[in-house]
Amino acid sequence: MHVSVVQNVLKMNDEIATMNRQILRKAGVFTIDLIGAPGCGKTALIERTLQELKHLRIGVIVGDLTTHRDADRMARFTEQVVQVNTGKGCHLEANHIREALTHIDLSRLGILIIENVGNLICPVGFDLGQDAKVGMFAISGGDDKAAKHPYIVMESSVLLLSKMDLLPYVPFDLELFRSDIRRLNPNVPMLELSATTGKGMEPWLKWLGERVKQAAPVA
Amino acid sequence: MHVSVVQNVLKMNDEIATMNRQILRKAGVFTIDLIGAPGCGKTALIERTLQELKHLRIGVIVGDLTTHRDADRMARFTEQVVQVNTGKGCHLEANHIREALTHIDLSRLGILIIENVGNLICPVGFDLGQDAKVGMFAISGGDDKAAKHPYIVMESSVLLLSKMDLLPYVPFDLELFRSDIRRLNPNVPMLELSATTGKGMEPWLKWLGERVKQAAPVA
Repeated sequence: MHVSVVQNVLKMNDEIATMNRQILRKAGVFTIDLIGAPGCGKTALIERTLQELKHLRIGVIVGDLTTHRDADRMARFTEQVVQVNTGKGCHLEANHIREALTHIDLSRLGILIIENVGNLICPVGFDLGQDAKVGMFAISGGDDKAAKHPYIVMESSVLLLSKMDLLPYVPFDLELFRSDIRRLNPNVPMLELSATTGKGMEPWLKWLGERVKQAAPVA
Repeated sequence: MHVSVVQNVLKMNDEIATMNRQILRKAGVFTIDLIGAPGCGKTALIERTLQELKHLRIGVIVGDLTTHRDADRMARFTEQVVQVNTGKGCHLEANHIREALTHIDLSRLGILIIENVGNLICPVGFDLGQDAKVGMFAISGGDDKAAKHPYIVMESSVLLLSKMDLLPYVPFDLELFRSDIRRLNPNVPMLELSATTGKGMEPWLKWLGERVKQAAPVA
């Protein structure tokens, strides 16, 4: 009984995610689901991305348990921010996105960034209707985190390693981390950057920009 | 239907947790459930604790999705380490602990540290049979993480703020973090430390040592 109920929940989620995907693709909005541990730097990355890519018209849906701190931070750089408070919920689900989309004017967007709840595990299993999952790690989290969280590594279209500016101050074996990524997902681009200093942001902004071009509105 | 199934799962977890608690208390083992985000420094803290408090005979149960890296690290400092691999499971449950306890000789232990799966959200809702939940944050995770994860703050018997050695290199408003903690859980001890340098470890070791004295075996 328990298993069948869980399957129903996931099936319903997938159906709503498919609807979200249709709506977003029809509008020509390239959508990413940004997944990473609490404190890996998701919000800082989005803030800098919003500033650097103003011309691409980026909207944001932010998942958090209770506060709207991240949404407030990002509202300084874009008019289209929707906060989803999940309460005790550890991840966003497709119905959260469906509801959030009713508050967004998609005709004015080129990119939608969904900042998932800070969690490297649970968000991976729930399709939201995104075009790409983006997994994020941080230097300060330690060099074993890719190996310890294989599902996010395997399911991501691009992986980010952030807080590179902290590399001199913590023990972190960059070659070990890179080899774990290669073993789990041999072809995924792995971008090393610091949203604080801006170093390494260029390949990430280029990756986003190229995908927006491919996401022209479907007639 | 869905709600009733979830309630049954939680009820069964609580029943097994109660059994675990009886077993552990009878053996006079003080047990903590250490909860924090991936990369906040849980394993490093336990490694240092094992080295400093050898005389208190500490065993460890380690939750991870797939690897046994943390268990390997800790096996250098104690003979009693049990790895629980949860697969895609985002938290430990009481039945994991029940099974793990069959691999541990409690008569030789004073303290059992359960290192939960790296996750600030899901582990909070599952009683394992511990005496105390210990919530852990890190300087590198940012000063907003207590406010954004209120449940772990409210349910912890003691809170740790780790990686204090990184304070000079990252933006972190210590007063803001402390005031969020005070608002959510006014009386909880908040210990600031670095497992890397050892600075601030003394109050943590003292806190543990005092609790062991109180956990003398029940006749």
